[in-house]
Order: sequence, then C-alpha cells, then structure tokens
Amino acid sequence: MLKIEALERLIHELTRLPGIGPKTAQRLAYHILKSPAEYGQRLSAALIDVKANIKMCAECFNFTDHDSCFYCLDPHRHEESLCVVEEPSDIASIEKSQGFRGRYHVLHGAISPLDGIGPDQLKIRDLLNRVERKMDTPHPIREIIFALDSDLEGDTTVLYISRLLQGKGLKLSRIAQGIPLGSDIDYIDDRTINRALLNRTEL
Amino acid sequence: MLKIEALERLIHELTRLPGIGPKTAQRLAYHILKSPAEYGQRLSAALIDVKANIKMCAECFNFTDHDSCFYCLDPHRHEESLCVVEEPSDIASIEKSQGFRGRYHVLHGAISPLDGIGPDQLKIRDLLNRVERKMDTPHPIREIIFALDSDLEGDTTVLYISRLLQGKGLKLSRIAQGIPLGSDIDYIDDRTINRALLNRTEL
Repeated sequence: MLKIEALERLIHELTRLPGIGPKTAQRLAYHILKSPAEYGQRLSAALIDVKANIKMCAECFNFTDHDSCFYCLDPHRHEESLCVVEEPSDIASIEKSQGFRGRYHVLHGAISPLDGIGPDQLKIRDLLNRVERKMDTPHPIREIIFALDSDLEGDTTVLYISRLLQGKGLKLSRIAQGIPLGSDIDYIDDRTINRALLNRTEL
Repeated sequence: MLKIEALERLIHELTRLPGIGPKTAQRLAYHILKSPAEYGQRLSAALIDVKANIKMCAECFNFTDHDSCFYCLDPHRHEESLCVVEEPSDIASIEKSQGFRGRYHVLHGAISPLDGIGPDQLKIRDLLNRVERKMDTPHPIREIIFALDSDLEGDTTVLYISRLLQGKGLKLSRIAQGIPLGSDIDYIDDRTINRALLNRTEL
C-alpha cells in the first residue's frame, strides 16, 4: 500500500516484535523516517551491539556483557540463598522490590508440554549441578526461592524442580500468591482470593 | 538496573519511539536479545536503508525511493483533483478507503503556533506554486480536497490555505466531519454530534 520498498521492509521487520501490530509498526517506521539520520544509525548500532556483546553468565544464565553477570560478580550478595526465575528480565523486577539480596538462577522459560518445552530445554540440570557443586564449598546454597510466573507452566516447573531437590537439606519456597498491594477485593478474581485465604498470614 | 550497558543503550534508543515507554522498550530489547542474530541484523539494515534510500517526492512531498512518488508517476490518476494531507502516512489511509483517484500534496504538518510551526515550515508555498504551474497546462488542477486532521491545527491550516486559494476558480472542500460508521451515538462526544447535525445530508 505504501509503495516504498525500504519502508515496507522496515515495517515488516518491526511487526515481528511482540505487541507491535501493522498500524504501530507503520507509525514507528514513519517516525524513524522523519527523525534525524543519526537516530536511525544509533538505534541500528544498538541492535547490532546487543547481539554481538551480550551472552549468558556461565554461573546463573542471566544475560551479561562480561563472563559473569553483575549479580554473580557482586561480593556483597548472600551466597546461601538462590532465587530461581524464568527470564533474565525478571531479575530487574525482583531487584526493584529490594526484597532479595542473594544470587539468581535463570531457567530461560518454564515447562510447557503444549509448546514443546520440557525440562531439558531449560537450565534445570545446570541448577542441580550448581547446587551440588556448592555443597562442599565454605558457602553452600541453603535456600532456594522460586519466583516463577503464577500460571500453569510456573506451577509445573516449581513442582518438578522441587521434587528433584527434595532430601538435599535445602529450604525450598515459592514467592507468595495473594491479592496485590493497593488492590480492591471487588476486582480480584476468585482463584486469587481463594489462594489468598488459603495462604492467610497470622497477625 | 539491568547492569548491562549494551542492553540499556538499546532500551534508551527504543524509548525515543512514539508510544514506547520504558517497560515496553525493555520487553522489546529482551525479545531482540533472545531472537536469532539474523533478526537483529535485518532490522538494523532496514533502519539504515530507510534513511539512506527514501527522500521526498519533488512534486507532492510524499516519501519515495525514486525521484517522484508512486502516485505522481501513475498515469491513470486524475490530474484535476488534488488531495491535501498533513503526513505521508495519511495517503495510505485514504488509498485504503478507495474513495479518491486523484493526486496528493503532503504539507508535512499543520499550522500550530504553540509548537512554533507557521505556514513557512509547511509545504504550503509549494502547493500554491504547484497550482499556478499547472494552470497553463492541458491538465490544470480544478478541485482541492483537504483531508487534514479534525483538530484545531487542521482547522487553522484549512482556513489559511483556502483563503490563499480563493478567487482562482478552484473547487475547495474538506472531508466530512460526523459520526464514524458503525458507531453507537451513546459513545460519540457532543461536539462531533453537533457537527454531524450541522452537516446532515439530505435523503
């Protein structure tokens, strides 16, 4: 419809991004076209840079531009507690909460048979190896906190890994499920209220 | 917060796009990071390409990858009617409507004193010159249809240009303002209903 090949190609590539439909992609492409040439160059360079310079941390599988990630290199974090997350981006959310000062382990997904994702596609074996490896060091892992998504895939993954870790003397927990802070009970779904009642905390 | 420089730079560049906040930019950046390297390269190349190969049509100021744009080169379009739009992207919307088969003229904005945009920053002088230039050819422009946004800036621009064109024997019109097709009157704002009543069409 636009009859400009270069523009249609950019729109096509943009629509492959999550949450970007054809209309938004068109708006973005025109914005880029009207921006100074330096902007397109900077964005283009940043894209190449991200793929060229970022890899996975050998210890926790977070993304990093060094051999180990920021959280694995930080000597002030507690060695004995490990927070297991699905995606590297989840780490930023947990850090913002300021509720955790230990180390992380990124699974890179959750078990989802419907999507063909089994335990072997995830960093589960690496988690077990990491726990074993630390056992005989001065700083063994004592607690594992699962901060996975609160959905079927998250539930399955927590159940699967926790069974593998049973009997190793580890404290296993999952972040609480309940009503979000500042929420109006009227607007919370039944299953969440049910879970919040079940997990009620004593006063 | 992410502690990865290349990733934060990409997020920063993405947040400069319209409608992309920090949260969306982060999601897009992680998606790109998890995509195959070829995707980042293709998107990056498409960005550079758009800026390198697209320029303004010398006749109508639409974007084009040739000297003249697709609509100016098409010999089957009516020469005598000209549709004036604010942005090149508006042309695609009008084409999709299949309601116009003439030529276009892109103003590249609308008069907006608050944003410091006066008539001289727009392609208004070029529109007048184009009308004059065509006067003595076998295909003079006879009708000008304004398809500008339905806001204060659009109104001002239509008024300004139509005054300059008065007395040249041209048929001047503006696309109709009224309730959109398929809309529920309950949800339409007062001013639109007022305008729709004023511009009612006889049956």
